[in-house]
Amino acid sequence: MRGRGDRLEAALAEQGLDRMLVTDLTNVRYLTGFTGTNGAAICGPDVRIFLTDFRYTERAAAEVSEWECVTLTGDWLGGIAERLTGKVGFEDDHVSVRSLTKLEGKLPDGVEPVAAGGAVEALRRVKDEGELAAIAEAAKLADAALKATVEDGFVGKAERTVAGAFDARVRAAGGEPSFDTIVAAGPNGAQPHAEPGPRVIEKGELIVFDMGAKLDGYCSDGTRTYATGDPGEEGRRVYETVLAAQQAALEAIRPGEKGEDVDAAARTVIDEAGHGEHFGHGLGHGVGLDIHEGPRLSLRSDDVLAAGEVVTVEPGIYLAGDLGVRIEDLVVIGDGGLRNLSSLPKDLTWVD
Amino acid sequence: MRGRGDRLEAALAEQGLDRMLVTDLTNVRYLTGFTGTNGAAICGPDVRIFLTDFRYTERAAAEVSEWECVTLTGDWLGGIAERLTGKVGFEDDHVSVRSLTKLEGKLPDGVEPVAAGGAVEALRRVKDEGELAAIAEAAKLADAALKATVEDGFVGKAERTVAGAFDARVRAAGGEPSFDTIVAAGPNGAQPHAEPGPRVIEKGELIVFDMGAKLDGYCSDGTRTYATGDPGEEGRRVYETVLAAQQAALEAIRPGEKGEDVDAAARTVIDEAGHGEHFGHGLGHGVGLDIHEGPRLSLRSDDVLAAGEVVTVEPGIYLAGDLGVRIEDLVVIGDGGLRNLSSLPKDLTWVD
Repeated sequence: MRGRGDRLEAALAEQGLDRMLVTDLTNVRYLTGFTGTNGAAICGPDVRIFLTDFRYTERAAAEVSEWECVTLTGDWLGGIAERLTGKVGFEDDHVSVRSLTKLEGKLPDGVEPVAAGGAVEALRRVKDEGELAAIAEAAKLADAALKATVEDGFVGKAERTVAGAFDARVRAAGGEPSFDTIVAAGPNGAQPHAEPGPRVIEKGELIVFDMGAKLDGYCSDGTRTYATGDPGEEGRRVYETVLAAQQAALEAIRPGEKGEDVDAAARTVIDEAGHGEHFGHGLGHGVGLDIHEGPRLSLRSDDVLAAGEVVTVEPGIYLAGDLGVRIEDLVVIGDGGLRNLSSLPKDLTWVD
Repeated sequence: MRGRGDRLEAALAEQGLDRMLVTDLTNVRYLTGFTGTNGAAICGPDVRIFLTDFRYTERAAAEVSEWECVTLTGDWLGGIAERLTGKVGFEDDHVSVRSLTKLEGKLPDGVEPVAAGGAVEALRRVKDEGELAAIAEAAKLADAALKATVEDGFVGKAERTVAGAFDARVRAAGGEPSFDTIVAAGPNGAQPHAEPGPRVIEKGELIVFDMGAKLDGYCSDGTRTYATGDPGEEGRRVYETVLAAQQAALEAIRPGEKGEDVDAAARTVIDEAGHGEHFGHGLGHGVGLDIHEGPRLSLRSDDVLAAGEVVTVEPGIYLAGDLGVRIEDLVVIGDGGLRNLSSLPKDLTWVD
């Protein structure tokens, strides 16, 4: 966690804030290391306070360093309010209207809450070495589980049976699925967010397999599309188009590039193949403690990429009622080029 | 879902509201049946509108009836705002400060947002027959998984191995754990919210096993404390005290009773045994689509119980550094008495 409070303190100074109140638990974890379900952090010049309740006193002592640990009993918001001073940034994108109203009723005179959501999320975009190692480990675990699940075969199994087999492998290896695993075969593949169902996978279908693992708090995300035998000329062509679009995007990503320009690199390839209207989502997103975080690679993303960011690159083509193809890698943006955390081959693989 | 919109409409009229905007997804599901990850509902006299985006058009058509289904493209909040009129209740306990600010910027003239959080949660307290059946089914599944896990034995296994075996059984039966399963042995049992860890369970210990299943959206919750051999005189006495406290609370629960009075029925037994300070949490809570919902059975709960509510009854005694005991049943409150959904015996059971 070293230095994260310092980076937040510097960001506050730029925004003219005296204190930042962090209540989103993922952001609290990022700053302090605390993994329990009730905690808050107050940051300011020479101020690093972590607050929790009696249930987590011991855990906080074990997990949190560099922040003064306070156990509040009784009035939670009152205990926070009395430690605030001046202009206080709060996470308006996470704090409920009711919580803010209650907090305002307890603030000392002269304390002014200021909407400052996104301050910690901005810090979280660039990962440090420990975070990169954690994400790489999660990706490795997920790819191993996917590889083993593919080797067991698809044909004759329900989508949800295959998804469950992947999930069980991730758990057996000490992780958790980082989101609801997608196994979408044939026409179901045309739904970008399909839920695996009872439909039995047949021969000659394309199967979109979107999966990830969460390990030590960090997520991975990846997609491969497999074929249970020849998917036909249209299927093969769509697959090649998505793969070419993905390759174009991977070549376009570098520090200083804008999210919308990387998205455009892939989208142009798909447009030119006549499938522009069949790629109805953004190209990718950041991954870290959350499965979706900044930066965004999408049609109107102003985000400027930086070294140390971890993003997905996941173009897709979806033909309603027919088939879908998506190919997704998880990559670390670096000054000397990309580091691809996704290890599985991308040539169209036939699976029994 | 039949009649739920009507009950909400009646509640709105009592509060002088023209419309209610429901955005919490659990509340949206309760009202409309929709199980996707983006949806909102607008309720008012003769107004039942469900809104989602293109990803969920098909699912909404399959799941939602009695509500007009609208697929919004582009401006989500704008599409909601233009369908609002008059005094509009919103869920201030769920809506973020930022979301409200954005919504306010799009509201037509004359539309006034009013904090009205908890309106749907109040309806959710009393369950209908379908909900009771779903909760009973979840409890049955969880108890079967617990029974099988206990039969496999505890001694020599890590807490988290035992918890993982329970979780796997729940999943194999088609459910999900309804919360992070607790298996807390020996001194770890003294932490009410212990996370199962690498500690190996030994002979002569008490093991708190707090578990539940989620099935078709509905949760169960239950706890048994087991012994791996004689837990000693103190252990036996604490167990008998908790069991007597639980029995007293079960006898005190009936429609019209206050949550604090039922809590007191159990707390008095524990107080009189000299363990008042070792029971540091409330007696119980409602269970339904959420694992924690209304009503509350606790020290200062004004909630008045009603027939059709489903609550946990879970007194505990926690001796720091030494041991813990908690016994929890899930019960349906009825006019003719309780229906206990927890099927496993409560005499102190020895497990190898």
